[in-house]
Amino acid sequence: MLLTAVSAWRGLVVVVGLSLAAEGLYYVISHLKRLRERRPAQVLFFPAPVTCVRPLLLSSPGHCRCGLSHRESALSCLTRLLISARRSLDVCVFTISSLELSSTVLAVHGRGVRVRVITDSDYMALAGSQVGTFRRAGIEVRHDQDTNYMHHKFALIDGLTLVTGSLNWSAQGIFGNKENVIIIENTDIVKAFVEEFGQLWNEYDPAKYSFSPQR
Amino acid sequence: MLLTAVSAWRGLVVVVGLSLAAEGLYYVISHLKRLRERRPAQVLFFPAPVTCVRPLLLSSPGHCRCGLSHRESALSCLTRLLISARRSLDVCVFTISSLELSSTVLAVHGRGVRVRVITDSDYMALAGSQVGTFRRAGIEVRHDQDTNYMHHKFALIDGLTLVTGSLNWSAQGIFGNKENVIIIENTDIVKAFVEEFGQLWNEYDPAKYSFSPQR
Repeated sequence: MLLTAVSAWRGLVVVVGLSLAAEGLYYVISHLKRLRERRPAQVLFFPAPVTCVRPLLLSSPGHCRCGLSHRESALSCLTRLLISARRSLDVCVFTISSLELSSTVLAVHGRGVRVRVITDSDYMALAGSQVGTFRRAGIEVRHDQDTNYMHHKFALIDGLTLVTGSLNWSAQGIFGNKENVIIIENTDIVKAFVEEFGQLWNEYDPAKYSFSPQR
Repeated sequence: MLLTAVSAWRGLVVVVGLSLAAEGLYYVISHLKRLRERRPAQVLFFPAPVTCVRPLLLSSPGHCRCGLSHRESALSCLTRLLISARRSLDVCVFTISSLELSSTVLAVHGRGVRVRVITDSDYMALAGSQVGTFRRAGIEVRHDQDTNYMHHKFALIDGLTLVTGSLNWSAQGIFGNKENVIIIENTDIVKAFVEEFGQLWNEYDPAKYSFSPQR
């Protein structure tokens, strides 16, 4: 009887131990999954109210006494996200003329993060395009060379966070139009966009320019 | 001693029972979560090769002997998804001139599914816009009435599946440009877009047209 009781207790201890181990394993896996999918998906809708985002671009917290509002907006959320890049910022947008977003890209580059920009050749040449400013600052910019549009409007932060939607990076897009931007860290989706960026970056390598494109 | 052994066995049974119950609960929750997020997120990249999608629009499986390819493409994936609408199809796109996608919208409407379309007033009036065809078929179409753009490019299938990206629903978008479309069933994201659609549908109610918009 004593032996039976001892073996029953042993069984109990084993079962409890296994349960605790399984529970612990579940939490470790959940934690790793949370680390992988760092933040929940988020949606920003535009037009955004006109706000000042300059303080967000400073390396150390600062204040701005301009007359604009400094409250949170879809633009400040987007700025805060882009400026959070630590290793890389890959931008693939049809138009980039917004002074707020181009200042953000320049600030990220200024912090030593590798910035690459892909854009559309037709709109790159229009007044207001910030491509010249980027190139003068040493940012690598590549573009298509045909009459179809490089019409994507996405960015990849550290190769982990995808920012994508209908928003062209222009003042009209931000402050005028009905637009959407999704921020997502779903591994499969991000991987597909990382691959798309890599393919376009390679396809638009200046070494491959023909300078007599088929039109 | 006998009592101790019995109570140890009872404890063992309770622990094993609780472990099994917890495991069962975990699987039920996982299953419900999978049902909620019906299919994994998917990305389509364009331009798509020119393919025929007409057989996909037939109520019963049919063949088409036209000279075009009938293989799978980003366009056929998108068509198959839109045609799968059973209760509602809410389309909110800047431009809709693609004959393939407008035929799909008409086919969904023809099956008795409630179709609502929101578009941009400036592009609605251009040659090739399918808005007139939609209205003649009895599909409800609403639009903005200002000079900014209703620039969204999304659709909601049965209020559960979101199709969104950079793609205008035009031939150039589908067969020419570099474009992306994400198909996603993340509950929070879908909810945000359902609300955005509802707000715009209400804002663009013809009863509210001023016919002398502030420009």
